[in-house]
Amino acid sequence: MFAAAERGHRLDKASFERRLPDLRRALLAAQYRLLRDPRFALVILAHGEPSAGRTEFVNHLTNWMDPRHIAVHALDPDGLGADGRPPMWRFWTLMPPRGRITVLLDSWYTGPLLDRLCRRIGRRAFADRLAAIDRFERMLVADNHHLLKLWFHVPVRELKRRVDALRNDEATAWRVTPEEREFVRAFRRRAPLVEDALAATSSSVAPWLVIDGHDKHWAQWQAGQAVKAAMERGLARKPERVPAKPAPVRRPPATPNVLSGLDLTHTLDEERYARELAQWQARLALALRRKDVKRRSLVAVFEGIDAAGKGGAVRHVAEAVDARFLTIVPIAAPSEEERARPYLWRFWRHLPARGHVTIFDRSWYGRVLVERVEGFAAPATWRRAYGEINAFEHELTDAGVILAKFYLTISSAEQLRRFRERETTAWKQFKIGPDDWRNRAKRLAYDHAVIEMLAETSSTAAPWTLVEAEDKLFARVKVLRTLVETIDSAL
Amino acid sequence: MFAAAERGHRLDKASFERRLPDLRRALLAAQYRLLRDPRFALVILAHGEPSAGRTEFVNHLTNWMDPRHIAVHALDPDGLGADGRPPMWRFWTLMPPRGRITVLLDSWYTGPLLDRLCRRIGRRAFADRLAAIDRFERMLVADNHHLLKLWFHVPVRELKRRVDALRNDEATAWRVTPEEREFVRAFRRRAPLVEDALAATSSSVAPWLVIDGHDKHWAQWQAGQAVKAAMERGLARKPERVPAKPAPVRRPPATPNVLSGLDLTHTLDEERYARELAQWQARLALALRRKDVKRRSLVAVFEGIDAAGKGGAVRHVAEAVDARFLTIVPIAAPSEEERARPYLWRFWRHLPARGHVTIFDRSWYGRVLVERVEGFAAPATWRRAYGEINAFEHELTDAGVILAKFYLTISSAEQLRRFRERETTAWKQFKIGPDDWRNRAKRLAYDHAVIEMLAETSSTAAPWTLVEAEDKLFARVKVLRTLVETIDSAL
Repeated sequence: MFAAAERGHRLDKASFERRLPDLRRALLAAQYRLLRDPRFALVILAHGEPSAGRTEFVNHLTNWMDPRHIAVHALDPDGLGADGRPPMWRFWTLMPPRGRITVLLDSWYTGPLLDRLCRRIGRRAFADRLAAIDRFERMLVADNHHLLKLWFHVPVRELKRRVDALRNDEATAWRVTPEEREFVRAFRRRAPLVEDALAATSSSVAPWLVIDGHDKHWAQWQAGQAVKAAMERGLARKPERVPAKPAPVRRPPATPNVLSGLDLTHTLDEERYARELAQWQARLALALRRKDVKRRSLVAVFEGIDAAGKGGAVRHVAEAVDARFLTIVPIAAPSEEERARPYLWRFWRHLPARGHVTIFDRSWYGRVLVERVEGFAAPATWRRAYGEINAFEHELTDAGVILAKFYLTISSAEQLRRFRERETTAWKQFKIGPDDWRNRAKRLAYDHAVIEMLAETSSTAAPWTLVEAEDKLFARVKVLRTLVETIDSAL
Repeated sequence: MFAAAERGHRLDKASFERRLPDLRRALLAAQYRLLRDPRFALVILAHGEPSAGRTEFVNHLTNWMDPRHIAVHALDPDGLGADGRPPMWRFWTLMPPRGRITVLLDSWYTGPLLDRLCRRIGRRAFADRLAAIDRFERMLVADNHHLLKLWFHVPVRELKRRVDALRNDEATAWRVTPEEREFVRAFRRRAPLVEDALAATSSSVAPWLVIDGHDKHWAQWQAGQAVKAAMERGLARKPERVPAKPAPVRRPPATPNVLSGLDLTHTLDEERYARELAQWQARLALALRRKDVKRRSLVAVFEGIDAAGKGGAVRHVAEAVDARFLTIVPIAAPSEEERARPYLWRFWRHLPARGHVTIFDRSWYGRVLVERVEGFAAPATWRRAYGEINAFEHELTDAGVILAKFYLTISSAEQLRRFRERETTAWKQFKIGPDDWRNRAKRLAYDHAVIEMLAETSSTAAPWTLVEAEDKLFARVKVLRTLVETIDSAL
């Protein structure tokens, strides 16, 4: 990919300055259209060799456009802030809301590229990481976070000349960091590897653009044009339509299925419950204090049919967890900041640091459950969510997060009994409303969605635990026991 | 304060259970009224001795009320996540939005109390920290984040008996942490000190309530009643009215004043500018790479009259800062999540970690500038902001943050010239709109506000730098030079 960018195109200063006003007008107009109608965010990756023009690009861009709506980020090399979370967590925290532009001077490519260049990972592992990036980028773009991936390039000989010139002038020597010196030193050997990586991740939704950095005016002109084109392309796309309400589902799922196979007759008498609850709470508490667990983190996801007892199960787990390390995240309607970002952002932001436990009371599975059944998400959106969720959970477990997923279910008759009890008990009334009755009427649609969800998102690394919750006491103990077993088997 | 809570009140189980339904109904009703009309947040501090009932209290509360709208937090003892930011940063990150309830099992009292109990700080320093807490709590309450401060207490003899009983039973031994054992061991000696601290911080806006934990039903009943009373008190308060628009200001500030004393004739020719800019950018870049600076963080605040050149000044500082450690935070209208929290929350959330630089393009001073002049904040609100801002900046500098504050100003004639230039230059039009002309018409009101702001918030630890910005080149160099000098003098 570099050869095409080494043709040495030039743009003289006068031509550059003559063309500039039109470019600035167009960039600003696009930026303001986007602010008024925030239908996408633009994430610009500005990579490249030192002195090839990416610093100038950032300075120009924030000068040409309104800099208050452009964020520029680079990675802190000390890895500050990840605290044991998956590597992508740092980039998720930087995602702009739709309507804004973010420039990343380091990105999800930085880690894999450096690891491969320094031979810390092999060809196979490198390919895997590039494939994960490709999945991630497709998800971003599908969620209207468009990508412009720029690589500023100069031929190796020119690169050395420029860096030496900077270093030899006292006033500019500080601009060359030790990392950059090392980069330049080794680039002749490394260039083919970088080229391959760019080619491998130049997808139709997010292609790489190599900027010919030989002439600085030409480079900045090219980059500016690329931003303009990306903005205008985004603005020209039709916004996603609100999906039509799905047709009511009247056909029950084929039997036998994973739900029909459950034995809902399990019970636990009060005495045995008290004994087993105390026993499993103690075991969980002690497991969480182990040194090897302290180096990891725990994420527990609770999903389930209304009135199945998620709240009670969560509370009995929480009793056994040191409150200093526990966060319970109830998932309801997303906030304004959350709605403006890719779907998974609202879950990434709550991921636990090393040694911490996060319980999600409802979760990212909302997309393939309530959003699917209620028609909040278009079919194409919730269908691609299976793959996105699997990739997300893969990132969690790969980073050493211990993940447990519970689906609690009860029979239709028991649900009806609990709904009626809630309506007649003063302090339970808050748990029941028109939504619950509406959901109940859609039980068949939910059954289809749940069965598909369990099939699509059960894996060895992140299995679902189905909890027969007809008897609350049995359910609570099963949840606690499963958590302890999950921790044990994760080590 | 403990004597009154050692009378050994009792409530038998039957009475407790008979009274409970009314309490739960009232708590839930109050919680749902608050959710519908989120006029305040309730922050409950649940402190006390181990086994005196605070864990049970949290379990009860999340059972009695809708737990999805109650967050429970305790401090991670490893100090995870502060990364060199002021100690209060961790609590700011936990502030609930209005409409919600948060229970803190450790709070801003934990640190000072432990420091004093372990004799790491003297009586004087302890008093200072309690005074800072008092200021902080008054601000929270004024911002409609109400506080309920509970201390669960049992007499020392009973405390020892309970903890021993827990430890001697294998099923419950895990509930007693090593920290708690240590706490109990030393509590006889320490109790008077705790009592004094509670008394010293029992203010009219946020009194302590010591819960008699001798009888568990009585303790939970008392605590539940306290929550109910706090909720109902909050709901009974009239919401703050939107302030009336302030009357137009026609009187110029008395002269001489801090603005009239400025010499706006300073200029810098292009050649000297190029030389000095390069020189001070290099010095700033090198200063920021020093090891002793890397252990601190830098916050630079830019305020100024419209068109004074804040953006350009920020950009020329940014050019000298390694992008990996720099965040530029433009302050405009607050987001939904920000509006729901105390005013300073939106600034606390952006504070830099150790080794990082944050530039605020406009800042917390908006409250005493635009919000005052435009009547967005009531007079009582912006008047108390001076003290709150001083306390906030004090926390920053106390924590080792290097703080620089710039106010850029230009003459009225120069502002007019720049406004007109913006209107006639295509790519500058985004910088000018009706708001700017309206602000310009209110120049006298802004002058009064600026002069008062400079007087109220200049201190040795956090001085303002007035920047004569009539000549942009002069202003940029002065900003850079001042930053370098601020860093030098902070070490």
